[in-house]
Formats: sequence, C-alpha cells, structure tokens
Amino acid sequence: MNQEFPLARPLHTSQWFNSPPLQLADLRGRVVVLEVFQMLCPGCVSHALPQALEIAQTFARDDVAVIGLHSVFEHHAAMTPVGLEAFLHEYRIGFPVGVDAVLPGSPTPATMQAYAMQGTPTTILIDRAGRLRLQHFGRLRDLAIGAQIAALVGESAAIATAAATASAAAGCDDNGCPLPG
Amino acid sequence: MNQEFPLARPLHTSQWFNSPPLQLADLRGRVVVLEVFQMLCPGCVSHALPQALEIAQTFARDDVAVIGLHSVFEHHAAMTPVGLEAFLHEYRIGFPVGVDAVLPGSPTPATMQAYAMQGTPTTILIDRAGRLRLQHFGRLRDLAIGAQIAALVGESAAIATAAATASAAAGCDDNGCPLPG
Amino acid sequence: MNQEFPLARPLHTSQWFNSPPLQLADLRGRVVVLEVFQMLCPGCVSHALPQALEIAQTFARDDVAVIGLHSVFEHHAAMTPVGLEAFLHEYRIGFPVGVDAVLPGSPTPATMQAYAMQGTPTTILIDRAGRLRLQHFGRLRDLAIGAQIAALVGESAAIATAAATASAAAGCDDNGCPLPG
Amino acid sequence: MNQEFPLARPLHTSQWFNSPPLQLADLRGRVVVLEVFQMLCPGCVSHALPQALEIAQTFARDDVAVIGLHSVFEHHAAMTPVGLEAFLHEYRIGFPVGVDAVLPGSPTPATMQAYAMQGTPTTILIDRAGRLRLQHFGRLRDLAIGAQIAALVGESAAIATAAATASAAAGCDDNGCPLPG
Repeated sequence: MNQEFPLARPLHTSQWFNSPPLQLADLRGRVVVLEVFQMLCPGCVSHALPQALEIAQTFARDDVAVIGLHSVFEHHAAMTPVGLEAFLHEYRIGFPVGVDAVLPGSPTPATMQAYAMQGTPTTILIDRAGRLRLQHFGRLRDLAIGAQIAALVGESAAIATAAATASAAAGCDDNGCPLPG
Repeated sequence: MNQEFPLARPLHTSQWFNSPPLQLADLRGRVVVLEVFQMLCPGCVSHALPQALEIAQTFARDDVAVIGLHSVFEHHAAMTPVGLEAFLHEYRIGFPVGVDAVLPGSPTPATMQAYAMQGTPTTILIDRAGRLRLQHFGRLRDLAIGAQIAALVGESAAIATAAATASAAAGCDDNGCPLPG
Repeated sequence: MNQEFPLARPLHTSQWFNSPPLQLADLRGRVVVLEVFQMLCPGCVSHALPQALEIAQTFARDDVAVIGLHSVFEHHAAMTPVGLEAFLHEYRIGFPVGVDAVLPGSPTPATMQAYAMQGTPTTILIDRAGRLRLQHFGRLRDLAIGAQIAALVGESAAIATAAATASAAAGCDDNGCPLPG
Repeated sequence: MNQEFPLARPLHTSQWFNSPPLQLADLRGRVVVLEVFQMLCPGCVSHALPQALEIAQTFARDDVAVIGLHSVFEHHAAMTPVGLEAFLHEYRIGFPVGVDAVLPGSPTPATMQAYAMQGTPTTILIDRAGRLRLQHFGRLRDLAIGAQIAALVGESAAIATAAATASAAAGCDDNGCPLPG
C-alpha cells in the first residue's frame, strides 16, 4: 500500500441535510465519495450530481459513503440553505449534504479553501484509511470513476489503516493538516 | 384561417429580467413562444429551457419571440427573484423572463391560474394575431415543436389579424378573456 | 413563391424495399424528405435514420413522404441488397428505400453523382412542386429540420406548381436537368 | 478467493480480425472482457461496442484484454466476414474480433451455444485465472461495468490461479467443461 497519500483534510461545515453533522472520521473504514457542488452550477446539476446518485445506488453502503458538500463561492444571496433544501427535495438527493462554512471576509468557503479546489463540480475520493486519493475538477466519465472507486473498495482496510498511521505520523491528523512548506 | 382560437390571456407579472416590462400586445405580429418554468424544476432545467434557447437561435427574431415566465407554485422562499437572477446568469438565458405575479392567499401565481396550467414546464405558443395555439405541460420533442412554430410563422399576419379581430368581437380582448360558459 | 429553385433531379435506382419502384414524380404534391445513407455509416445509423423515422411519425403522410436511398460508395461487397434488407428489418425502417444504381466503372452510384453529394448521410428536401430546397451533408438539428419541413408543408401546392412550371420552362424537367453552364 | 467460479469455456472461432487467432488461454493473467455482438444488432452498435471501446481506453492493456466475438444467429447472408471487416473499419474497432464458428445444421454458432447465451449483445467477464465471472445479456451501465472490471483487476493473479487450479481439478480444463449433470 502506497503510504505517500496525505490524509484528507477535515470538512468545515455549518449545517447538514439528510444527516446529523458528519466528520470524515465518522466514515473511516469506508471509501468516501465527496461531491462538491453549487445548486446553480449547470455542470453539477446535469452531470456530477446524477453521477453521485448513481454511485450511491451501485456500491454497497458499507463500502462506499456518498456525501455532498455545498460550496458556494458566488451568488451567495441566491444559494442559501433554504434554497438548497428545496433543491435537494426537487432533485431527490437523499445522501448527506453539508454546507461548506463561510469564512468571514472571503467569498470562498472554508473547506473549498482548505482543499484548494478550482471550482464546482469537484469530485473527491477518500480511501478506507481516510487518505485523499482523487480530487478532480470538472466532468468524469462514469466508467472511469466506477473503476477508481471499485479499486479503492478492494483495498484492505487493515493495510490501508497501517499505511495511514505511518502517514499521519508525518504531522497530519484528523483535526487538520499543516500546509506544505 | 381558423377563427376559433381564443386570444391568449394577458401576462400578470411583477418584474422582468433581460427586458423592460412586456405585454403580449407588444409582440403582436410575431409568433410568441412562452416557456413557463421554475428554476428548481428538473425537467425545466434539463429539457424545456435548453429547447427554448435553441428555438431562439433557430428562428429569426422578427418572426419568433421567445420569452420565459417564472411561475413559482412551491418552495417560494427558495425561488426568489434574487435566486432567479443568478440562475439566468449561470444558465446563460438571455431572452426576456417575467416573474409571474403572486396572488395573495394562493400558492399559485396569477398567470399560471389564468391559463389553468398543470405545472412546469409548460410551453405555450401564441400566433402572430395573439391567439393561443398550443399549451403543453411536460416534454415536447424538438422536431415536433420546431414544426409547430414554423407552421405558425408561415401564417400570414394580415389574415391572422383579421381572424383575430373577428375572434375578439366574440368577447375576448387583450385585457382578458371571459372563462367559457 | 420563389421561382429560382431547380427541379430535383430524378432518382436512378436498381431496386426498392418496402415499396414498389418509386419516382419523385409519383410524390408530386407532397414534400419529400430523401435520406441518403449507407448501412455501415455510423452517423447515418446513430442520427440521420432515427431522425428520418421521427419525421415520418411527426408529419401526416399526405403532406410529407419520407424515403431512403442506399448510396454505397465504398465497401461495396459488404453493403449488398441482401445486407440492406436485413439492416432495414433489424432497425425497423418501414419507409420506402431505394438502392442507388451502380454506374459501371465508378465507385459512386448514379443518383449520388447526379446530385453531386459529398457523402452520407445527406438529407434532401424537395417541395410540393418537385423542386430541390435543401441538400445537406452531415448532421441536422431536429428543431431546425422540423421547422424547414413544416415551412415547405405550409407552401400552397397550387402556387408551388405554377412556380415549378415556370422553372421547368427554363430547361429542366423530370427526366433530368442540364448541368449549369 | 472464491473457488466456485467455473473456468470459462474455450472460444470456437473460424477467423480473427485485428489479431492472429486467439485462445482464452493466451490471455491468462489478464482480465478478459468478451463482447459478443452482431454487426446489425442495434443495441450492440449503439451501446455495447462503444462501451467496449471505452473499456479498452480506460484500463491498462496489461490488466484488461478487450476482445469481440461476432456471433451471428440470424440474417447469416447479410453478416458475413466481408461485411464484418467493413463494419470494424467504419466503426474504428481496433481490438481483436473473432468470428464465432458455424455449427452445421444450427443457426446458432458454436461459442454462443457453449455459453448458452440468450442473444446479443452479451458481455462476458473472465478473471485473471480464466474463470467466468459475469455473463450479461443486454445493456450494462458504464459505472457498474467499470466497477466490476476494476474489482477483477484488483484480484491477485497468484491467488486467482491457485483457486482456478483447485477449480480445474473438479473436472473443467481449458479444452472444455463438461455440461452440468
């Protein structure tokens, strides 16, 4: 097992839909698919969120946790939690969705900044040991993402955790990762 | 020219985007495609609005006017004018869009009620003489709607207006049409 | 009615499926949609032939005749009439399909040469008076082709025929048109 | 490693395109995706073969071998090897394609019979140890097939081979498997 993957940074959220508040640590042992979106982002609505729903239907819940993160970096007055709740209802999105926390004085929310994301949609894969394995901005083919998730599902959690422990010893834990350099 | 088509009832709007306030009477002489939608209605976003954009690109502006009508009948707090403005920007909808007027005490807005619409998306075709020629709830095939609009474009405005005058004499004018019976 | 459109050149065919032998003259008074294809042409199979089938379902048979023309200009041993018959059965193509006649010594069949087509798929529209109104190589949007056919349907056959008679007097008749110049 | 999967039965072919003659045994150690099709089968052309091409592009050749099998059970005169060769050229199918061997007196070819397939398209997955892991008639979602292939890729070839040896000891070898009962 490759030990050079960093632990995924924690999520900073202000609110959750379809779930009590979640931390990535709660999902340790499962592969996590984190779909980062905005409710008025056309590519999120047409491709990324339908793909996330299909991922949730394809893999066993014990193996793969699909969660959404609403990371608003523009049109803040239009994409409020009230708007998001209606959106999730109309688009029948039943998996947990967190609201990325506002950072005072910045249009870009906290988790989006921590991950240095380029925009929405961003698809993030985290392995059973909590390590960041993919962060992709834009569209992903169904066949490719299905294959990548299945490969992570196949990794032994035990081996993964050992590797992650070694990785964590390098200075990164679930409460945060120091920025490189 | 068939004289039995009723004049299209007037629009009741509280606000316009991409245009000064419009009345159907302003568009007399052109075929009008009225796309009635809600910004969080999946079928509107995936099919009806892209089709309306393609209609606007296919026909000459002198022949066909494409306008939208935002008729919110649910999740009112989520689909505000502020939300709509961001939506139109993100989805690059450049044709005029009116906001269907709220009727006090009713969840269904005024124009939607006047036309007895069944929901969104609803596509409405109005001929050069201002008469209602199609009102369809749900999805329309591109080929069929293209054909129907072209047929209306081909109708002579002069003949159409004569017919409409006769029709109007029956009791229906641009300020309103009595309900049948 | 514009009189400058040439009469459509006659079809040169060796065999017909789903119909007795047809001439364009047999279809005078109706708009003709002529879909020129090869059974092993990917764009024909994925887009042009499904569109032709949808056209046949959308317009009244009295107004619009949809016919296919199998114009093989490559892989002749693979795309035989026996192959075509199985193809039409498997793809449930029920409209008349002619086989473009082989010209001795040329890979390009006779009708394809007479029309100077660029390849397959080619969609050809002929008006009620038998005049060539559109010849397009490649993909056409459903909305646009639906509109163009409907516009031709709306033209009065009487006016069209008068115009065509004038046009024919210029030297072009149903048996053929002299090449320009 | 589950030992109850049977070895995949050998292919019976009369001809190959894009490759010298192949046996499944030649591919041992790799996952095999066997796409069984007919060139005039609409579902094969629109979905199964494009999916097979995408599989070939997504996975490393050392891990996954994609091969086609042309199993004609109807319209034999239309779907000849000459026709197939043109088809493969036009549809740019570059992976190895075998022609399922004709069985005298039967419309169904030999491999199709040996696998008791229900029709085309049939997608077959064979693991690194040569065991049959999936046989599916009809359409498969990209996400699901991508995941299934990746899961097989992740299986250790060493373990798989040990399991297969045990399995083979039960009476099934690469030259054939006795029919159950």
